[in-house]
Amino acid sequence: MIEPDASRAPNCLTATEAAGLISAGRLSPSVLVQSCLERIATREPVVRAWADINPAKAIDQARLCDASPHSGPLHGIPVAVKDVIDVAGSPTGMGSPIYDGYVPFADAACVAALRAAGAVILGKTVTAEFAGVFPGSTTHPAAPDRTPGGSSSGSAAAVADRMVPIALGTQTGGSIIRPAAFCGVVGFKPSFGVINRAGLKFAAESFDTIGVIARDVDDIALIWRVLAGAGAAPPDLHEPQPRLAVFRGHQWDRAAPETVFAIQQTVRRLRDRGAHIVELQVPEGFAELSKARVVINGYERARALAWELQHHAKQLSRAMLRVVTDGQACSYDSYLAAMARVECWRGRIAEIAGSHDAILTAAVCGEAPIGLASTGDASFQEIWSMLHLPAITLPLATGPSGLPVGVQMVGRRFGDAGLLQLAKWVLNTCTPPSQFETADTESS
Amino acid sequence: MIEPDASRAPNCLTATEAAGLISAGRLSPSVLVQSCLERIATREPVVRAWADINPAKAIDQARLCDASPHSGPLHGIPVAVKDVIDVAGSPTGMGSPIYDGYVPFADAACVAALRAAGAVILGKTVTAEFAGVFPGSTTHPAAPDRTPGGSSSGSAAAVADRMVPIALGTQTGGSIIRPAAFCGVVGFKPSFGVINRAGLKFAAESFDTIGVIARDVDDIALIWRVLAGAGAAPPDLHEPQPRLAVFRGHQWDRAAPETVFAIQQTVRRLRDRGAHIVELQVPEGFAELSKARVVINGYERARALAWELQHHAKQLSRAMLRVVTDGQACSYDSYLAAMARVECWRGRIAEIAGSHDAILTAAVCGEAPIGLASTGDASFQEIWSMLHLPAITLPLATGPSGLPVGVQMVGRRFGDAGLLQLAKWVLNTCTPPSQFETADTESS
Repeated sequence: MIEPDASRAPNCLTATEAAGLISAGRLSPSVLVQSCLERIATREPVVRAWADINPAKAIDQARLCDASPHSGPLHGIPVAVKDVIDVAGSPTGMGSPIYDGYVPFADAACVAALRAAGAVILGKTVTAEFAGVFPGSTTHPAAPDRTPGGSSSGSAAAVADRMVPIALGTQTGGSIIRPAAFCGVVGFKPSFGVINRAGLKFAAESFDTIGVIARDVDDIALIWRVLAGAGAAPPDLHEPQPRLAVFRGHQWDRAAPETVFAIQQTVRRLRDRGAHIVELQVPEGFAELSKARVVINGYERARALAWELQHHAKQLSRAMLRVVTDGQACSYDSYLAAMARVECWRGRIAEIAGSHDAILTAAVCGEAPIGLASTGDASFQEIWSMLHLPAITLPLATGPSGLPVGVQMVGRRFGDAGLLQLAKWVLNTCTPPSQFETADTESS
Repeated sequence: MIEPDASRAPNCLTATEAAGLISAGRLSPSVLVQSCLERIATREPVVRAWADINPAKAIDQARLCDASPHSGPLHGIPVAVKDVIDVAGSPTGMGSPIYDGYVPFADAACVAALRAAGAVILGKTVTAEFAGVFPGSTTHPAAPDRTPGGSSSGSAAAVADRMVPIALGTQTGGSIIRPAAFCGVVGFKPSFGVINRAGLKFAAESFDTIGVIARDVDDIALIWRVLAGAGAAPPDLHEPQPRLAVFRGHQWDRAAPETVFAIQQTVRRLRDRGAHIVELQVPEGFAELSKARVVINGYERARALAWELQHHAKQLSRAMLRVVTDGQACSYDSYLAAMARVECWRGRIAEIAGSHDAILTAAVCGEAPIGLASTGDASFQEIWSMLHLPAITLPLATGPSGLPVGVQMVGRRFGDAGLLQLAKWVLNTCTPPSQFETADTESS
């Protein structure tokens, strides 16, 4: 049985801890939800993580859970939902004024699955405009002058700030891994196709993947099993000697010293614990994937936003207009060529990834950058979204300002359960996070 | 310039003919739309193809086109939209009482693209419940005691009955090819991913594909270029000696004599015109795809309908409840195994298909069966949906009751333009359709 620190307020519990206490009758869902709402009331003026929150509605759901028999693995657990995912009866704004007044008729499939497992839908979290690059209002919980990352900005910030234990996000380029890495929490982008997308507003549908942000790998596994319908938890990894491949990729020059350091330290610590780690060279032609991504992303976004362009183009940000204008200008043949190239790489990378337990790589270039005008660089995240592989970021290091730096692990296609298992071992092995030291980096 | 038969009422024109006349100032959009509405008024009590039609709204759109400069390749052309695709401000019923009162906030991406090209959205056509197997109200236009096929029942029947020249459909198993083949029109399911799905209600999202039904291949090409953003038309095929592979598949025992006859006659006629035709053997293990389809279809449908199951299970048909209950009972591991198998076959079949200009195969088991309780057998359509290849059915033959029997051609992945080119040549070569003769079949 879980024995969480009694001095911690309920909002600081992980979902797994809270679920254990609720199931043991030692915590009521409404006390938990109330605690999260109080944290939100205190911190929201600075963090601005929520697009829509209705405390009375949240409390009503929680009281229903108080009064009901245990209804599932998430009974009474508050969950936040990124504001590009439909929640019936709640405003769903897509991060755009175009959707002012839009109230979905039905829950998205993933939201319905959470409710069926007993979850309390706490509210909608801020998204960058249509899960793209134009930021919403959210700030970094540990440094309000910095971006929390995007586009799942509110989900990552709310979880990191202990406003809610778990949140749904989506990733088309780097929209789960980047904000989670910046905010110092765990972000998981499953294999493409594993979590049903009915009720999700599409960005670029060949890449769009629903995923999860939490403060612990166990919480990720808990909600992932509900969403993917993956049944019982896999057994814990005993005596692991995982085979990992370190991959720096064709854009390693974008890695700041703290990211170089984070990878080095992680490799060192995992080797000390028995991991077998090799270096994975950049396959020839791999760099072309970055170009294909730009083509596919623009082409598909332009089409997905056809109605918005036709009727509300003036309400799109300049940044989005640029992406979709480029996408409209892109020829169908270029799009098909890019798609064919990516489909071919999906097969090739499956073979490469298949011979390792996971690929270990950078999650982000470095600490969250100063300023709120950009949500950061997607270079280290977007390739894996495009290749449909599961990816997770773990808060394994900090940078020169003491802010988190994530380390990313990429699993085999459909190897989500194994990746989560391994991630749990890695997180345990590498806690507390390595603190950035300049000397170490310079001597490498 | 097109010189259509002046004696024909405007509703009998193909979209290509009508677009030519409109562009030449010889036909007004409102006259065309009025003619379609009159046909609907006369025939709808028997055919029951429409889920929602608002004549005043349709006429308003047409009059706007009358008064506007030429706005695109579909200027003033009426188009029908299957009722699982969102049209802003129009009831969208999904073929289910659960969606009574649902009015979409925005147009689906494909609808917005049609509007941008000048189309008049005439109304919503009847779909089987959630694009599944439980039929809507539509009857076969040539035999009201028979099914028109499904799930794009209303789209196929409305086009065949000359209520509208072109209609959007969707295919998860056989939902475009089958009704189009039964109704004697052309149905086209493009390569998976080519037509954007934003605003489509998902059935099984790994297979769901938006496509088109029309009375002529030129019309399919016209609307397809708008939807896929494929730019200018490809040049006509001159002196074609296409290389075709006849494929009977592992379920050939389901083919009725008229389907056996249709394939034989088509092969004979195309050989006479210079086509190079070989027999494609069933690859070993191919039959397992049918089993994988059942698993994936059930698993994904159960998840896509999570909200409906939670709140409105009693309003689902028994047939749908069975599919989703099976899907819920299916293990995650079985689903992943089926998905991995199908992904592997997508690569293998791409190689096989790549060495031919197209695969020639049955579209349906035979003529539309008597009765309205089932929309027919999907065996000859569903494999190609799953494999993400483009497919088209052409009305190349008739059966013992004088009803249409389609012949299907399957193209290369992303080879949609080439397939349409080839289909045009085949349709011209094989017009008029072969009439079923028992003796011919028996002697084979």
